[in-house]
Amino acid sequence: MAGQNLRNIFGLATRNSSSEKEISVDNHVKTFGWAARDPSGVFYPFQFTRRETGEKDVRFKVLYCGICHSDLHAAKDEFGFGIYPLVPGHEIVGIVTEVGSRVTKFKAGDKVGVGCIVGSCRSCNKCSNDLEPYCSKMIMTYLSIDEDGTPTRGGYSNEMVVNEHFAIRWPENLPLDGGAPLLCAGSTVYSPMIYYGLSKPGTHLGVVGLGGLGHVAVKFAKAWGLKVTVISTSPGKKEEAINHLGADSFLVSTDQEQMQAAMGTLDGIIDTVSAAHPVMPLFGLLKHDGKLIVVGAPNKPLEVDIPVLIVGRKMLGTSAVGGVKETQEMIDFAAKHNITADIEVISMDYVNKAMERLEKGDVRYRFVIDIGNTLVATPST
Amino acid sequence: MAGQNLRNIFGLATRNSSSEKEISVDNHVKTFGWAARDPSGVFYPFQFTRRETGEKDVRFKVLYCGICHSDLHAAKDEFGFGIYPLVPGHEIVGIVTEVGSRVTKFKAGDKVGVGCIVGSCRSCNKCSNDLEPYCSKMIMTYLSIDEDGTPTRGGYSNEMVVNEHFAIRWPENLPLDGGAPLLCAGSTVYSPMIYYGLSKPGTHLGVVGLGGLGHVAVKFAKAWGLKVTVISTSPGKKEEAINHLGADSFLVSTDQEQMQAAMGTLDGIIDTVSAAHPVMPLFGLLKHDGKLIVVGAPNKPLEVDIPVLIVGRKMLGTSAVGGVKETQEMIDFAAKHNITADIEVISMDYVNKAMERLEKGDVRYRFVIDIGNTLVATPST
Repeated sequence: MAGQNLRNIFGLATRNSSSEKEISVDNHVKTFGWAARDPSGVFYPFQFTRRETGEKDVRFKVLYCGICHSDLHAAKDEFGFGIYPLVPGHEIVGIVTEVGSRVTKFKAGDKVGVGCIVGSCRSCNKCSNDLEPYCSKMIMTYLSIDEDGTPTRGGYSNEMVVNEHFAIRWPENLPLDGGAPLLCAGSTVYSPMIYYGLSKPGTHLGVVGLGGLGHVAVKFAKAWGLKVTVISTSPGKKEEAINHLGADSFLVSTDQEQMQAAMGTLDGIIDTVSAAHPVMPLFGLLKHDGKLIVVGAPNKPLEVDIPVLIVGRKMLGTSAVGGVKETQEMIDFAAKHNITADIEVISMDYVNKAMERLEKGDVRYRFVIDIGNTLVATPST
Repeated sequence: MAGQNLRNIFGLATRNSSSEKEISVDNHVKTFGWAARDPSGVFYPFQFTRRETGEKDVRFKVLYCGICHSDLHAAKDEFGFGIYPLVPGHEIVGIVTEVGSRVTKFKAGDKVGVGCIVGSCRSCNKCSNDLEPYCSKMIMTYLSIDEDGTPTRGGYSNEMVVNEHFAIRWPENLPLDGGAPLLCAGSTVYSPMIYYGLSKPGTHLGVVGLGGLGHVAVKFAKAWGLKVTVISTSPGKKEEAINHLGADSFLVSTDQEQMQAAMGTLDGIIDTVSAAHPVMPLFGLLKHDGKLIVVGAPNKPLEVDIPVLIVGRKMLGTSAVGGVKETQEMIDFAAKHNITADIEVISMDYVNKAMERLEKGDVRYRFVIDIGNTLVATPST
C-alpha cells in the first residue's frame, strides 16, 4: 500500500514509542529481524517477540520479503504513524512450521504468502464482500496495533504468525523470490484492472510509471491479451518496456509530439506514480468513456479540469490492494501465466544501501531480501 | 450544457462577428427573435433567416423556451466563442408547421422538442452508439456553425428548422412549458444517473445544488424509488427540498456537524454546481465504492486528494447531456411519472431582467419564455 497522509485516513492512534520500552508479553516467542528505530530510517538488527501459535494461526519461517516503497516511507515516518522500532515488509513468503488446532488451509511444510494485511473484523459489509483492506478495523502487516495490543511487525524478520484467513496458499510452480512482490505490488494493479473492467481482451491499457507496480501491471495486461502502452518520463525505459516486458508501445510523457499523436487512443490507464504529477495530459490520452485509475497515493491533491473530462465522459477511479480472496486468485493467475516480478535479490545487511538506491529509483524493479539465507540472529544494537 | 473554457475543448473556430454583416442566403426564410449583440449580454429584438425546410427537416413554431444558465454565459461571451448576434435557447418546444418529403417521425401539428444539439456526423462510433453530444462534429443548437455555414441560432425565436433525427416527439400529456427545461437540465442529470448505475431502487443519492438541474434530479430520483439527500449551501431550501420536492433529507454543506454525521452514507452524488467548489467534503459523504458525478463545469480545476479516495475505492465521474435516443426515453419517462421542472413563465421582453435575476440565483427553478404568446415581430434595433 503506497501512500502518505494515511494516519488520519486510517484513524490510527499515534504511538510516540521511539523511546518506549518494548512491550513484554510472557507467553510470546522470541524472534528477530531488522528494524528502523527512528525517522532516520536506518535499519539495525532487532530482537522482539511474536505471539504463540493460536488455534487459527499459521506460523512460518520467512524466506523472502520484497521491499515496497511504503517500507521506505514508513521507516522515515513519512506516514506519521511513528511506531518504532519498526519492522516493515508486506511482501512475504515462507514455509509453514506450525499450525493451530483449527487451521484447515495449511499444514507444516506448505509454502505460504502474506501481503499488506493480517487482520480485519471479518463481519462488516466490506469483509463479507472479500474487501478486507477497506475494513475500518483492518490490521496492517506493519504499522498497526494487533488485537493483543502489540505493534504489528512485518517480513524483515525470521518468522511470522498470522491468522490463516490472511495467509495465501503458494502455488508449487511460482518462484518464492520473484513471486513475493506480487503480494503488494501485484495486487495493487491487478485489483483495479478487474474492478474497473480493464482486463478484457481488446482493451488498450496505458500504464504510467514503470516501477515495481507498473512493470507487473504490464505483465498481467499482456497475459489477459491487452494492448499495452507504457507512459514514462524516462526515454531509457523504452527498450525494456517493449522488448523485455512485451508492451506494444511506449510514450515519453514529456514529449508533447508523442503525447499529442496518442490522444484519444486508450481505454484505461493504471497510474502507478506516487509523486504529485499533472494528470490532465493522461486524460487526453483516453478515449471516450476512458478511465484513469490512480493507485499511487500522491501527497498533494491532483488538479482535475472537469470540462475536459465532461466532453469525453471520462472518469477518475482509485483502488487499494485487493482482498484475500482476490489476492489468492491473482497469485494463482500469476502461477498459471508464469508471471513474477523482475527482482534484485539482496542480503538482509544490504537493506540500508537498498533503501538509498530505492529512493533514487535505482532498481529494476523490486528488491527482494533473501531472509532465509542471510538473516542471522545478531544481538540488537 | 453548462461549462466554460469550452472553446478549445470543442475545437470551434472563433468568429469575431459582432461587427460582421449578417450572412444573407437567398433561399432562406425570414424569422425573428431576440439576440445578444455583444458581450454586454443585453438582448434586443433581432431579425434573421433560417433555411428552407429540407427533405429530412422539421420546421416548427416555437411556443416555449427555457433559460439555461449556459444562455447567460454565452450571451456574455464567457465561453469565448464570440458568435454575435447570438440567439440562445436549447430547451425548446413547439408545434410542427411543415415537414420535409422524407420525414417519418413527425407531421404538421405534432408537438416537438429540441435540446442542446441539432447536428452530428451520424456515422462515427459515438453517433452509432447514440452518443451524439460527444461526436467531434456535433453541432450545438446555438454557438455552432451549421452545415450551410451560418451560425446556429436557438429557441429565443419565432421558429426553428431541424433535422428530424434531433427532434424529440413530445408526449401528449407532458406540459410544454414545464417540460421544456427537461431537454437540457433534465437530460444532464438523467443521463449520468443511468450511465453510472445510480437509478436503481434502494440507492441513496445525494444531489448537490438545488437549482435548475438539481431540483429535476430529485424528481427523477424519487420516481425511481431512490432515497435522496439534497446538499446545499442554502439552509432556506430545506423546507422546499423535503416538503415540496420529496427529498428524504437535507444537508447544509457548510454545517460541519451535519456533514460529519452523514459521512459514508451515500452511494452516489450528482453534483450540479458549476462554480469551483471543494469536493473532498462530498467524497466524505460517500460509502465505499461511492461515485461523485460532476455535471456542472467549474472553470477552475477541482482538487482531488487521492489517498482519501483510495481507502474507499471512490471515483469521480463526469457526464454531458444525453444523446437523442436517451433524451426521448427521458421525456417519455417524465411524461409517465408527471415530472416537469418548476418554472416561472415570463414574457420575451422580460429576458434581460430574467438574466439579472438568474445571475443572482433568484429563480425557482427555471425561467421559461412564453415565446408563442409574447414574442412579436419588432424591427431589429
